[in-house]
Amino acid sequence: MSPNHSISLSAYLEERKKITDDALERYLPPEENYPPVIFKAVRYSVFAGGKRIRPILCMASAEAAGGNVEPVLPVACALELIHTYSLIHDDLPAIDDDDYRRGRLTSHKLFGEDIAILAGDALLTEAFRLMSEIRLMEKIAPERLLAVIRDIAEAAGYFGMVGGQVVDVQSEGKTVESEVLHYIHTRKTGAMITAAVKAGAILANTGEVELNALVSYGRNVGLAFQIADDILNVEGDPTLLGKGTGSDAKRGKVTYPALMGLEASRKKAGELMESALFAITHFDYRADPLRMIAKYIVERKF
Amino acid sequence: MSPNHSISLSAYLEERKKITDDALERYLPPEENYPPVIFKAVRYSVFAGGKRIRPILCMASAEAAGGNVEPVLPVACALELIHTYSLIHDDLPAIDDDDYRRGRLTSHKLFGEDIAILAGDALLTEAFRLMSEIRLMEKIAPERLLAVIRDIAEAAGYFGMVGGQVVDVQSEGKTVESEVLHYIHTRKTGAMITAAVKAGAILANTGEVELNALVSYGRNVGLAFQIADDILNVEGDPTLLGKGTGSDAKRGKVTYPALMGLEASRKKAGELMESALFAITHFDYRADPLRMIAKYIVERKF
Repeated sequence: MSPNHSISLSAYLEERKKITDDALERYLPPEENYPPVIFKAVRYSVFAGGKRIRPILCMASAEAAGGNVEPVLPVACALELIHTYSLIHDDLPAIDDDDYRRGRLTSHKLFGEDIAILAGDALLTEAFRLMSEIRLMEKIAPERLLAVIRDIAEAAGYFGMVGGQVVDVQSEGKTVESEVLHYIHTRKTGAMITAAVKAGAILANTGEVELNALVSYGRNVGLAFQIADDILNVEGDPTLLGKGTGSDAKRGKVTYPALMGLEASRKKAGELMESALFAITHFDYRADPLRMIAKYIVERKF
Repeated sequence: MSPNHSISLSAYLEERKKITDDALERYLPPEENYPPVIFKAVRYSVFAGGKRIRPILCMASAEAAGGNVEPVLPVACALELIHTYSLIHDDLPAIDDDDYRRGRLTSHKLFGEDIAILAGDALLTEAFRLMSEIRLMEKIAPERLLAVIRDIAEAAGYFGMVGGQVVDVQSEGKTVESEVLHYIHTRKTGAMITAAVKAGAILANTGEVELNALVSYGRNVGLAFQIADDILNVEGDPTLLGKGTGSDAKRGKVTYPALMGLEASRKKAGELMESALFAITHFDYRADPLRMIAKYIVERKF
């Protein structure tokens, strides 16, 4: 980072998390709405202490492209709603069968499987409602909003996140080729992280060359994020993670450390971070948060 | 119907079902895509012999408002994808636990619960991708597309279909007030049928007065549709329905016949049909299909 614009990473992430949380608080209906259980379930999972990395990347990308945070907020929050829905459905007994997430009971353990399924469905639906809000169009051209909705839907759907999850589920307990592992990681986590960066850039009205650079940054950071997650699942601190380590191995999940070992996984994550930084070399100081986040993603402890 | 434009109901519905099926065939990826199981599961449920009543209403509404069928098709098909996702998730063991639908195994019985959940998620996501396709904008102003996406998301979400389903699930086996039954029916089925009619009207660029008339038509037809469904579940022909009758009663579902009896339910459905017809009195012959569909919805045998 340029010394003139130096800010602390933790202060930056905390400020951006707060901006996201405040916006989510405004966008989500209060629990008093009828029927209360669905709004309770939705808020329980959305406000479960997530790092808000997708919204933060979306905002940082918009700023790197010369835009502002405020008009990007609904889309940034929609990304978090989609992420939250995917966690609720992944935790279901029929999929990962997890009782805890971030140290708290999962949605189906607290509200029942029926409500957890429906809360996930509601969050996914609400993400698209939020992005198509008419009042957004005062600040953003509707063509751009539509392009962003399409990109995000593609990243979340059967050619993206859902496809990655399907292959992940089907690969459990099996030996898979590195191509399959790459497919899972780039789709399951990578696609939505790339979409977050791309959405910020499009909403900020960036040009083609800058857009491609930011998408390249997003792809590298997205894959690095998942590899770092895999590594943390092996050697992370359970107290910081809010869940036990070793769960991937127990479940026979395909991961980078399982396939190529911890050392090679760390090396790969580091290389991806370097590639992400290289992609945005020509951006000015406004891309410093993106640079900081790339390092954070690989070096984080939870 | 005006004698000059008289067409047979069954021929009309069949033609429109074919238009919808052909479009869905084009829009959905072939089963050869990777990972094949998700595309198999998606196609299995989408091509399960549905009546396509939501797409047909959307197209008929566009025509009543002076528009054409073709530019409306992606949105019409998106409505069917959302409807299909809701059926897959409703059938899950944690919700209605149904083994058969339309005489065939339900998605989770054939593909497993994990894939059924993910297939529903993929369909819901794909509906929004389809509606935000850039090439649509050549024919439809992006502002209108965004308005339609927002309306449909609202109708499908926690204030619409999902909300209705939540109250339905929570009311099983209980005695409920007629207000609760009304809530369930207007949200669970009515909201998306109204959204289908409204979407067609908005995409056809109709004026405010006509739009309101069509929305009123949609509300009445939507509620009538669900009451007719309830009645068929009591006295329908299981061979025509592709499922057993009496399942609502066995499960302790709240229905119109259970709350007010068959005779009063029939009367209510008839009154709603009349109100639907009244709402579009001032439309010309181009609204004749809508008039025909209103009668069909109440008088159908399956």
